[in-house]
Amino acid sequence: MMSHGRIYLDHAATSWPKHSDVLDAMDCYARDCGAASGRGQYQSANRADAILRSARLGISRLIGSPAAEGIAFFSNGTQAINAAIAGIVRDGDHVVTTAAEHNSVLRPLSHLAATRDLTLKIVDCDRDGVVRADDVLDAVTDATRLVAVTSASNVTGGEQPIQAIGCGLKKRRSATHSAAFLCDAAQTFGYLPIDVQACGIDLLAAPGHKGGGGPQGTGFLYVSPAWHEQINASVFGGTGSQSESLEMPASMPAKLEPGNLNVAAIAGWDVAIKQIAARDEAVYSETLQTVARQLNEGLRAIESIRVFGKPGRLPIVSLAIDGFQPTDLSAILDAQFSIETRAGLHCAALIHDSIGSAPGGTLRISGSAATTREEIDAVIEAIRQIADAVG
Amino acid sequence: MMSHGRIYLDHAATSWPKHSDVLDAMDCYARDCGAASGRGQYQSANRADAILRSARLGISRLIGSPAAEGIAFFSNGTQAINAAIAGIVRDGDHVVTTAAEHNSVLRPLSHLAATRDLTLKIVDCDRDGVVRADDVLDAVTDATRLVAVTSASNVTGGEQPIQAIGCGLKKRRSATHSAAFLCDAAQTFGYLPIDVQACGIDLLAAPGHKGGGGPQGTGFLYVSPAWHEQINASVFGGTGSQSESLEMPASMPAKLEPGNLNVAAIAGWDVAIKQIAARDEAVYSETLQTVARQLNEGLRAIESIRVFGKPGRLPIVSLAIDGFQPTDLSAILDAQFSIETRAGLHCAALIHDSIGSAPGGTLRISGSAATTREEIDAVIEAIRQIADAVG
Repeated sequence: MMSHGRIYLDHAATSWPKHSDVLDAMDCYARDCGAASGRGQYQSANRADAILRSARLGISRLIGSPAAEGIAFFSNGTQAINAAIAGIVRDGDHVVTTAAEHNSVLRPLSHLAATRDLTLKIVDCDRDGVVRADDVLDAVTDATRLVAVTSASNVTGGEQPIQAIGCGLKKRRSATHSAAFLCDAAQTFGYLPIDVQACGIDLLAAPGHKGGGGPQGTGFLYVSPAWHEQINASVFGGTGSQSESLEMPASMPAKLEPGNLNVAAIAGWDVAIKQIAARDEAVYSETLQTVARQLNEGLRAIESIRVFGKPGRLPIVSLAIDGFQPTDLSAILDAQFSIETRAGLHCAALIHDSIGSAPGGTLRISGSAATTREEIDAVIEAIRQIADAVG
Repeated sequence: MMSHGRIYLDHAATSWPKHSDVLDAMDCYARDCGAASGRGQYQSANRADAILRSARLGISRLIGSPAAEGIAFFSNGTQAINAAIAGIVRDGDHVVTTAAEHNSVLRPLSHLAATRDLTLKIVDCDRDGVVRADDVLDAVTDATRLVAVTSASNVTGGEQPIQAIGCGLKKRRSATHSAAFLCDAAQTFGYLPIDVQACGIDLLAAPGHKGGGGPQGTGFLYVSPAWHEQINASVFGGTGSQSESLEMPASMPAKLEPGNLNVAAIAGWDVAIKQIAARDEAVYSETLQTVARQLNEGLRAIESIRVFGKPGRLPIVSLAIDGFQPTDLSAILDAQFSIETRAGLHCAALIHDSIGSAPGGTLRISGSAATTREEIDAVIEAIRQIADAVG
């Protein structure tokens, strides 16, 4: 495929391009070593184990986790969220979540509510797609086992008040009330700093292949030490340890990691994690927010289009043009301008009612810190041309 | 790491090296395209979808599946098996499996038996680690929902009578009796031909990174048309379709594929699948069986060691030397001979009682069709030297 002139603005789905060092590390591992992890007594297998240890420690440090063994690897963010929900929620529990969530949170919870005597409270968001921390905290009862809130909407890029919710939950924690706080950091991990302890987060799930800079096939779940014993396995299999037992090992992270891990992908991701740890965060943050600001200012200046949500720190903008299906818009942008965007509901079932984009959804333009001024100008100009053509 | 002189005999864990074209395709996809599948309206996303279609069709043809949409992708074999078991078994069901299974089958079933009112019958195997088809069929009752049998033990390489079991089940199928037949083909997919229809297999699970020749991070579950509606999702999330719904789509394969698939790895796997389809099967089979025969003849000729199970078509040999822990044997082989093998229970909890290798397990030597005569001679000579040293 020609990548000539291609303007990739679908970073909220998966980031591209990956850093060459990341892909080199993946390829090098696959070619030179290739061993499975956790099961061998030979040097190549030890190399696999060392890569996992390094990546676990790197992620652990990035998010302020007190222990590297609290990081379990998954093949994407969805698998990690499912492991968190299925591992924590029991029959009869009360769970609080929000209308701003992705279907990776809404669907497993809805399934439990439909089949397992779960009481699910979905807190509304405002017309910008943002929930109020107090609304979430007010929904929590003594029976609440889990509170699941995304760090930022994948539709609008709007950040949710994670720290206020987490700290509020901490304050209200008591002998009879100890809900776990699950944060879906799919849109923020690697883009915006997070400290799980400062935010009172018990469970943090994220893919590795978006802001995390890793290859496809990566993701993680952080489990705070207080929940290591309580979280149950929901997928079962070989772990290379305690193989004589028909039960999963009781310890993290083995209890959540049955089957062969994708060591090659994690070898690549480990490089990306190190790059994130080594960067000047102030410079990076300014770069990312400049992209977000330029995208927002340029697009919001086009009078005949509707932009959903408020401008924030993430370079994600969702919009609609009357007279166009978002899917048609996306197809036109690709065919005529070589601009790659995403259209529709973005696997978020409920937020569109709040922000006014139901039932067709939005055209989502999502950049990264590497998105250039020229690319931003190109998409603004393209949207303006399309809007003018119908205006 | 130096690969100089490295003799890799842990193919039953994951195959190595992968064909250069397989890794090139993975790297090329990640570098040049990188798009997520199933969610975009742009050409790069279409390329992702085309890769998935090609790999689905290729796998489908290899196993004689009547429909490509019966193939769902997973990140390894364990995830595929879990999806099959959790998707089919309901509270109160009766399930039949065997003592020859891997923990990826035994552990999810044991968990259901402990928590969900499942009645689990584990059929014994003989001292060679092989089950009798009649013993499995005799264990089936009108209440049996699932019969789960591996195509070959990952400890001994011994093939199980899959076709006899599948055809027996078909014959006994009636209005009141319709157990699904699940085959864990982890050790045979890509090595030995299989026809799911001829064998009466309803569900076939396998990793892509062993005999399948694909990169780490690949696996699939085949679901026969009769079970497309009946199998339930057990992991939930975005599928890029019907996003307005809080339920998973009802159709295969979307219902089993929430979250981002590892398109880059599948792009590599697709190449490997095409290579398997294009090879001269008679020549390949003869090559593989020659490796199996040479390994078995050479090792079984060493009087002072114990070899478990019977020689078969797969180049997997499990052995023990009195006076050595298998883990120590494996470490010595690596350190002194650069031979990479696996030691212990191999994530198979029950078979060791049958074959007489409990509690320490075995040293497993597993080759592939690419294993050379020189490599085989080297491991035979090394085992002979170690055995002689204590003899």
